[in-house]
Amino acid sequence: MSQRVYNFGAGPAMLPTEVLEEVQQEMLDYQGHGASIIEISHRAPPFLEILEETEELFRRLSGLGSSHALFFMHGGAQMQFSAVPLNLIARKERQTAVYLITGKWGVLAEKEARKFGSTEIAVDGKSFDYRKIPAWQGTLNPETSYVHLTSNNTLYGTQWQKYPETGEIPLVSDSTSDILSRKVDYSRFGLVYAGLQKNLGPSGLALVLIRKDLLGLALPQTPKLLDYQLADEQRSLANTTSVFSIYVTLKMLRWMEKQGGVAVMEQRNQEKSQLLYEVLDGSEFYHAVANPGDRSICNVTFHLPDDKKENNFLEQSLKEGLYALKGHRDVGGIRASIYNSMPLEGVQALADFMRDFEGREG
Amino acid sequence: MSQRVYNFGAGPAMLPTEVLEEVQQEMLDYQGHGASIIEISHRAPPFLEILEETEELFRRLSGLGSSHALFFMHGGAQMQFSAVPLNLIARKERQTAVYLITGKWGVLAEKEARKFGSTEIAVDGKSFDYRKIPAWQGTLNPETSYVHLTSNNTLYGTQWQKYPETGEIPLVSDSTSDILSRKVDYSRFGLVYAGLQKNLGPSGLALVLIRKDLLGLALPQTPKLLDYQLADEQRSLANTTSVFSIYVTLKMLRWMEKQGGVAVMEQRNQEKSQLLYEVLDGSEFYHAVANPGDRSICNVTFHLPDDKKENNFLEQSLKEGLYALKGHRDVGGIRASIYNSMPLEGVQALADFMRDFEGREG
Repeated sequence: MSQRVYNFGAGPAMLPTEVLEEVQQEMLDYQGHGASIIEISHRAPPFLEILEETEELFRRLSGLGSSHALFFMHGGAQMQFSAVPLNLIARKERQTAVYLITGKWGVLAEKEARKFGSTEIAVDGKSFDYRKIPAWQGTLNPETSYVHLTSNNTLYGTQWQKYPETGEIPLVSDSTSDILSRKVDYSRFGLVYAGLQKNLGPSGLALVLIRKDLLGLALPQTPKLLDYQLADEQRSLANTTSVFSIYVTLKMLRWMEKQGGVAVMEQRNQEKSQLLYEVLDGSEFYHAVANPGDRSICNVTFHLPDDKKENNFLEQSLKEGLYALKGHRDVGGIRASIYNSMPLEGVQALADFMRDFEGREG
Repeated sequence: MSQRVYNFGAGPAMLPTEVLEEVQQEMLDYQGHGASIIEISHRAPPFLEILEETEELFRRLSGLGSSHALFFMHGGAQMQFSAVPLNLIARKERQTAVYLITGKWGVLAEKEARKFGSTEIAVDGKSFDYRKIPAWQGTLNPETSYVHLTSNNTLYGTQWQKYPETGEIPLVSDSTSDILSRKVDYSRFGLVYAGLQKNLGPSGLALVLIRKDLLGLALPQTPKLLDYQLADEQRSLANTTSVFSIYVTLKMLRWMEKQGGVAVMEQRNQEKSQLLYEVLDGSEFYHAVANPGDRSICNVTFHLPDDKKENNFLEQSLKEGLYALKGHRDVGGIRASIYNSMPLEGVQALADFMRDFEGREG
């Protein structure tokens, strides 16, 4: 077996080696049942126990209280781009939602919502190429069904530092790329959703947290498996869920708890991102994408002076075991995704490489 | 490690040990990339190669030609209960589909379709408790958008032996529980869909085969990720797919090819089911659920004289390493799901156990 690389991919993202080793060990026989967990019914006790512990552990790690339901749905964040308006746009007769757009995923979420109701764009970072998160100073029509934002913008490496106040109007967050990466009071949100494949586990599902009084508002044309009320009633099992995704997510949550929980994750993510921002700030060679006040602790993005140097950077970093650093095609440049599973050593290795590379080619 | 059981679960179902061993071996390092396949981007070459080979291999095994598109969608068969009407009900202005109902999944599919258009029930096995597949003698209104059936009914162990002729009207099949278990000319269907977790792989996705001229008919309110045209254009990657599900499915398809392909699968499934039907037919103790003319080669269902004997049967069979034989809660009794991965030896062990048990308790 070759050595494992430091994987800076934006998602599906790296997982702790310990987690993968456990998965490996159990692959043919889950806890003496004589079958792999992926061969066991989603309604059989071995999996029901996994599902229950996953919920409990997420609540413990996040501090989410009983005000909110928690369940998994098929399809990642983009399925939620449809599910959110289908379930919440009818909360007010005006059937209008406000979108705060700070990047590509916000653009797509707003576009999808227009299929099911009306939208208003109250913040649009487009004129800044999404390098900063514009301040929001407007007022909200009280007949707004919900306000939607993207908490962390993977492409540009920006992150909301302070969430807006929306009063009685439910705030909805696509938290795919920063869930459990820092301490957040999720109870203040009407709805939080997150595809699993960045901070939580393998791809395939989204985690949904919703304030219980917002259940039961779905439009009549909501596809059954996108109905939040049914998902809550059936506790993620309105049909056969992705057993493997939840199984690995549980191991990931256990790993986080063992490391010390979300406070420790946040501290490490601060430290990791700081290592890279220090290199960027001390350099005339690298150009950071994100506005300093909006910097993400999950994705660090930058450019080199030209394409040729960027390609050299990617080629040479790969040889050093630093994997998947290429920026998103919409932004170009370099992106280092440093989610919870990325160890400090990996980021240190990247920071060292950046300094060396600048010394050679800068 | 304990010995692996013979797993008769209806799905998520057993997988060949060879397949799981390969998954196990590669879990920390997929082919020298230094990362698990579940950590690698769905848009990176290692996964794109998997996706491409999966499609090619499915086409080769099934004989499906270029008339049909093939892609994966999130959510298993029940998500397709919504996707089918969303994508096809508008094929005719009348927006009406015909459902041939031969079991619980057909009931749920028809109910879901009513959200998006009108339905007509042309066959309904309910009066037979779904123990038989009623003959269909009606005629079809030419303005019917599509005709929907369930090819194999897992709960009762019935299976369509000869598909109905629907002329110009697209025939749609939920083939979740018998896809690639026998030779079927899928090209004659307008649309075939199948959750992966019975004959193909782990849970989480559905495979969709659709005649290309049926693409592009989706209702405007179709959620983005349920739009067949987009799924085809984006080749299953309109968003992050369940990488692991497709990865294991490819290994499963390779395994099928190595075994000799679908013809061999069908022959084995015939042989396996015959072993069990012989026991049932030779016994006054066991009572088969399915009408002999409609018997499934994928699920064999039967009752014992009373609940106590059924419970004894389940307890004792489990001790013999025969796992998950309990019938679906709607039907009760015993169900042996004997999909492609179930070896002949497992079925032989069950047949032997049945004879012994009858000898002891009959």
